Amino acid sequence: MKIPHSVWYGWGDPARAKPLAAGGLEYLRATLGLDNVDATHPPVDFADIGLRPSGLDDEVLDKLRAICGDAHVSADSTERILHSGGKSTPDLLRIRGGDAHRAPDAVLFPGSAEEVRRVLELCVRRRLAVVAFGGGTSVVGGVEPLRGHLDGVLTLDMRRMDKLLHLDALSRTATFEAGIRGPAIEAALEPLGFTLGHFPQSHQEATLGGYVATRSAGQASTGYGRSDDLVKAVHLETPAGPLDVGSLAPGTAAGPKLLDVIVGSEGTLGVITSATVQIHPLPEHKSHGAWSFESFAAGAEALRKLRHEGVRGDMPHVCRLSDTDQSAATFRLGGPKTAALARYLRLRGQQSPALALFLWEGDKRETTARKRRSARILRAAGGIPVGPMPARAWERGRFSGPYLRDELLTRGVFVETLETAATWTRLEATYAAVRGAILDALEANGGMGYVQTHISHVYPDGASLYFTFLGGLEQDGQAQNTRVKKAASEAIVAAGATITHHHAVGIDHAQYMQAEIGTLGLEVLRSIKETLDPTGIMNPGKLIPETDNDAPPKDKP
Amino acid sequence: MKIPHSVWYGWGDPARAKPLAAGGLEYLRATLGLDNVDATHPPVDFADIGLRPSGLDDEVLDKLRAICGDAHVSADSTERILHSGGKSTPDLLRIRGGDAHRAPDAVLFPGSAEEVRRVLELCVRRRLAVVAFGGGTSVVGGVEPLRGHLDGVLTLDMRRMDKLLHLDALSRTATFEAGIRGPAIEAALEPLGFTLGHFPQSHQEATLGGYVATRSAGQASTGYGRSDDLVKAVHLETPAGPLDVGSLAPGTAAGPKLLDVIVGSEGTLGVITSATVQIHPLPEHKSHGAWSFESFAAGAEALRKLRHEGVRGDMPHVCRLSDTDQSAATFRLGGPKTAALARYLRLRGQQSPALALFLWEGDKRETTARKRRSARILRAAGGIPVGPMPARAWERGRFSGPYLRDELLTRGVFVETLETAATWTRLEATYAAVRGAILDALEANGGMGYVQTHISHVYPDGASLYFTFLGGLEQDGQAQNTRVKKAASEAIVAAGATITHHHAVGIDHAQYMQAEIGTLGLEVLRSIKETLDPTGIMNPGKLIPETDNDAPPKDKP
Repeated sequence: MKIPHSVWYGWGDPARAKPLAAGGLEYLRATLGLDNVDATHPPVDFADIGLRPSGLDDEVLDKLRAICGDAHVSADSTERILHSGGKSTPDLLRIRGGDAHRAPDAVLFPGSAEEVRRVLELCVRRRLAVVAFGGGTSVVGGVEPLRGHLDGVLTLDMRRMDKLLHLDALSRTATFEAGIRGPAIEAALEPLGFTLGHFPQSHQEATLGGYVATRSAGQASTGYGRSDDLVKAVHLETPAGPLDVGSLAPGTAAGPKLLDVIVGSEGTLGVITSATVQIHPLPEHKSHGAWSFESFAAGAEALRKLRHEGVRGDMPHVCRLSDTDQSAATFRLGGPKTAALARYLRLRGQQSPALALFLWEGDKRETTARKRRSARILRAAGGIPVGPMPARAWERGRFSGPYLRDELLTRGVFVETLETAATWTRLEATYAAVRGAILDALEANGGMGYVQTHISHVYPDGASLYFTFLGGLEQDGQAQNTRVKKAASEAIVAAGATITHHHAVGIDHAQYMQAEIGTLGLEVLRSIKETLDPTGIMNPGKLIPETDNDAPPKDKP
Repeated sequence: MKIPHSVWYGWGDPARAKPLAAGGLEYLRATLGLDNVDATHPPVDFADIGLRPSGLDDEVLDKLRAICGDAHVSADSTERILHSGGKSTPDLLRIRGGDAHRAPDAVLFPGSAEEVRRVLELCVRRRLAVVAFGGGTSVVGGVEPLRGHLDGVLTLDMRRMDKLLHLDALSRTATFEAGIRGPAIEAALEPLGFTLGHFPQSHQEATLGGYVATRSAGQASTGYGRSDDLVKAVHLETPAGPLDVGSLAPGTAAGPKLLDVIVGSEGTLGVITSATVQIHPLPEHKSHGAWSFESFAAGAEALRKLRHEGVRGDMPHVCRLSDTDQSAATFRLGGPKTAALARYLRLRGQQSPALALFLWEGDKRETTARKRRSARILRAAGGIPVGPMPARAWERGRFSGPYLRDELLTRGVFVETLETAATWTRLEATYAAVRGAILDALEANGGMGYVQTHISHVYPDGASLYFTFLGGLEQDGQAQNTRVKKAASEAIVAAGATITHHHAVGIDHAQYMQAEIGTLGLEVLRSIKETLDPTGIMNPGKLIPETDNDAPPKDKP
């Protein structure tokens, strides 16, 4: 299965991007108070990207080629640039501006756990940092090739390790190599009647190893479970040797669940080379639904009731609620049918509605019954049903959001996202505080900002909050991003929410890990790393802050 | 809420024990080929129990009293004997024989996390081992007061820390002190309309801290989730300081889930002083059901279909399947109605049936519908419905099994249990191998053995297996137990199953941890322990084997 890799300056295959319509552009311009949103900020020419020469000598390169094969070791500038960072807005601003100075010294494409093991042995001896690279979709700096205190840095692109190794249909588990990407996972399982059910927005690009390494959530994780629910066992190559964690036996009580030390470790302990996951039968039927609420708070309360009062098992697989800002944009930009819907809702008393989207999956009869029972709860909570169309439209565009960012950056519009989660008790206060902090920071230099928010995942004890924010791109876009991100992160910490719901930690959140897990918790993480990676070659500068204070991780100049 | 503590030589309040009927005794005698099952092996008199004098000097005792209060520090022999071990059969054989030489040097009853912290500080300075003691129900040596390489050992009985600290009804979480016992948890939640839904057989005795420390499963965990599913956050006092792990925010992706380093750590990293758990609404209704299958394999396949083919959410909260040996005993000893049922099943072609018991919980209409849909699957899988009576009878006696053991030991009958779990693919082979190994080991000295088995928990990928086995008590009951346990454990490891599904590791399974998590996995556990408990005072000799070979943990003579 051939899956194209993202263009160097942004997301996916640009031929698939749908440009913003004139109405959307004007709405954006007016909302952000900009003079124009013309395409005045294109990326530089690829040939003009600057990077330092590879620091590897021929002896090391020869040894790497002896391990992985000549064709699978690259020190040329193209591969190094393509692996110089992830896909956060600051990553894109940097590469679009022609800066790839942090590119790795070489890119490897290992073909087996054994090759990874031998590469790690060499890197320990030669003091080379190692960055495991799945789809390269990190938006928190997770795959940035920092060398830390070492003499060089290699990126291990896992794309060649993309095979289904074993399927146990009776126990409904599948073992894959870690470099397999979302669409290939589904393509392997579908003919056998199964799905993994893991659909992050990065699905077209991201890999199973990345899912596990980052504790990712997918759009349907309310139904199928997050990656930390799905994964059963992992094989990992560490500088201290190979490690198998997790148990194929269900429900073991044999000591702490060491699998959960590896899940979420973001490449700092070793390279995940394969993983066994729980799989699910392919749903026979999908049923779409949308309900409108008079406010975000009313909608959130309806989702809580759906989770708490609904019949066990009725919870939709996908469950999303937009705040009134996000809903307004949907209504404004959705065409004549959507505009008519907005008029209808106004007549029904909802002046600025909050729109909720649902997707139930299962066999047809069961799914229909679940939707019907859920509808009773949503109606009683003040929801107005608005038909399946908005949920269908969302599903069609579910993986296309990142394309839009490339066009916005070209048009001089700053756009980024961040996410958190909070208990039901703290959800509304967290929403208000973080939204307010983002807006204030966006407008700190006199420009206008815009924030839209949605709940993407619903849990027994709370829900996630996902913020998308825009403003006119300032002269120093990196400083602009840092300012907003810092304000939001501090508001999240102060609200008692989590610093990340599914984007993971990477570089960007490392300085908040002390607030998240405490000084002694960090010591525990460090002691685990010391055991598995005593020379510190694995993804330095990520996840674990180098000191306990607020200083961002340093990279050797 | 006053909950009586277990009698020193066995389980619970002996006044509540229901003696075996004459028919049961004769069945047992004949099955085990014994000359008699008379009460020839009573426990010694309490006054005759031997123990070594407390090794603590007055200075240490005074300091402990200054921390916890005079009334809450005991070096007298009664408390020391009561805390000299757990409730495994070898524990009972030892104490019934008058041997409490491993009694702790003192028993403390701390009243707060602060007191625990100060006790640990003192113990580090004075080289004293610390055993956290919840209900004291461990059947794997988990609370045995080993001093390891240290100069003495204290047991911290957590019974005074038994309060509900906080309830978040909206987020459905509750925070309790760790020493609260099962019935007190339910008594605190019931007036508020909630349940924890955690009902291990030890429910009357065991504590929340114990649940978390051992990754326990309850009888209804197929429905409510295991303790590792229920727990959200834990406060722990460690020799390195206080540690809060887990997040109140749902679905965080902020690095590895450190909570899962503490859950299952069995007191080897610190003392759990409070925990926040997910709670559930009290079920309005319970519906009982029982089905009979022509074989254990047919019943297991029916449970798998129930899990895989059933409507999402329909899975019963309790789901148990007895093998034909256990079912035969039920039919034989269950009275005239049960005998009639057995005749009916023979007429329907089931000569030696395997009986499955179910309990659905929820609102009445929903529960009825779920039971009806489940019945279709169970019937299609060859099940014959036999009415609610067997499940009701099981529920009435659900906490009384351990009482029976005390009588059996007095009658010279050896009885013990052990458990494992395996994938659906490996379940039948694991059952056959472990059952065979137990039977062979029971009969190795020429006696007759008897094994009965049931599935107690059903997962998407497999199920648990719980073995109860009996034989004539040999002269050296400890050696008898060791022989059978070793044979069973080796069969479990060879079958690729887990060494424990819910009894935890303690001393008895420590030597199998290398097979379970590997040498490098053990190194990770040791590095975590080194960080939180650098002087090794926390529950030495448990969970983590002292060396990687098969040698059992040593205790200082």
